[in-house]
Amino acid sequence: LGNGGIIANPNCSTIIMLIAVTPLHRAANVKRMVVSTYQAASGAGAAAMAELEQQTREVLAGDPVTQEVFGFQYAFNLFSHNSPMQDNGYNQEEMKMVHETHKIWGQSDEHKSAITATCVRVPIMRAHAESINLTFEKPISESEAVRLLKGALGVSLLDDRGDNRFPTPLDASGKDDVFVGRVRGDISQPGGVGLDLFCCGDQIRKGAALNAIQIAELLL
Amino acid sequence: LGNGGIIANPNCSTIIMLIAVTPLHRAANVKRMVVSTYQAASGAGAAAMAELEQQTREVLAGDPVTQEVFGFQYAFNLFSHNSPMQDNGYNQEEMKMVHETHKIWGQSDEHKSAITATCVRVPIMRAHAESINLTFEKPISESEAVRLLKGALGVSLLDDRGDNRFPTPLDASGKDDVFVGRVRGDISQPGGVGLDLFCCGDQIRKGAALNAIQIAELLL
Repeated sequence: LGNGGIIANPNCSTIIMLIAVTPLHRAANVKRMVVSTYQAASGAGAAAMAELEQQTREVLAGDPVTQEVFGFQYAFNLFSHNSPMQDNGYNQEEMKMVHETHKIWGQSDEHKSAITATCVRVPIMRAHAESINLTFEKPISESEAVRLLKGALGVSLLDDRGDNRFPTPLDASGKDDVFVGRVRGDISQPGGVGLDLFCCGDQIRKGAALNAIQIAELLL
Repeated sequence: LGNGGIIANPNCSTIIMLIAVTPLHRAANVKRMVVSTYQAASGAGAAAMAELEQQTREVLAGDPVTQEVFGFQYAFNLFSHNSPMQDNGYNQEEMKMVHETHKIWGQSDEHKSAITATCVRVPIMRAHAESINLTFEKPISESEAVRLLKGALGVSLLDDRGDNRFPTPLDASGKDDVFVGRVRGDISQPGGVGLDLFCCGDQIRKGAALNAIQIAELLL
């Protein structure tokens, strides 16, 4: 622990994804992961949330939109994540999802899961959503995945095909758990090694403050 | 042409995706495709657009939200596509993206591209966005993909890494072209066979009315 008192807390999109995926990774090893995010305003701070609300009022009133935080219209719009662009064409947020996953899973250079991410900000207030496509080293069935997710710490399974009821950002807002659903065998991959799923997690809680507290509690 | 006068028009998410992907498919053959959509209210009709606007006003006023079209809150929220769920856990919209792609590309059973889709509705008025991950049979470089997209009919390339300026639904709204950007080599796939990209297209124009007119013009 030392004297520093600094707690390293992971990127919000990464930790929300890994709460959903780690139980499956432990069972069948993720070989490759393709993730697309639907990220909330809160990840860009309180000013971004306030501007989304203000812009939305202005659009509905037919007024010109105030563009101070992002420099363009966010209300009723979505855009590629505003973090700095890297030389490889990925933005910093996307590369965090790659590097921090390797770090959290403790993967050495020889055994890193292959990951690609596309990070997008959507006009939602405080919970991120993610569409995740997985390729495993070993076959893993839909029912086994559901069983693992049902028993996983920090996961609320919301996967009701009959009622077309799956996680939404509003379900996750103000909650500690990451909500997971749309768990299904991937029809594009043979041999039962592919799964698709969708998750939502509160960016302010699990994506930031709650997770820091949970790490501190584990340390102390 | 016969006497029927019926024009078969593809699914909106499918045609917007294929305007972006077909030029690359012709050059290097798509082996596998993973797509996540960010779909606008207009795909669910005028009543859905009106309800999104009404709900947004109600949320901002702190009033209870009217829930007639979808039965839950759409304003400042997103949700799994509202089309009927299929036995395999995919919804109908997702399976249209699979089947109609095979049909439009004229692929026989032995040579079908493997496709998985996750369709999500976001609180946007009239243009769909899609995050697309591609695996090709032959290597295709980022610069070759950009060159092909620049010359492609119906595509506007908007891919400015320096200014972090990429397609948004508002760019595409009211336009005939599909806007394509975030074209980059996929770091999760070795051998130069992987690409990621992001596109936006007007659901009412290219996703429906414009496309029907274009098909009719070709026929006549």
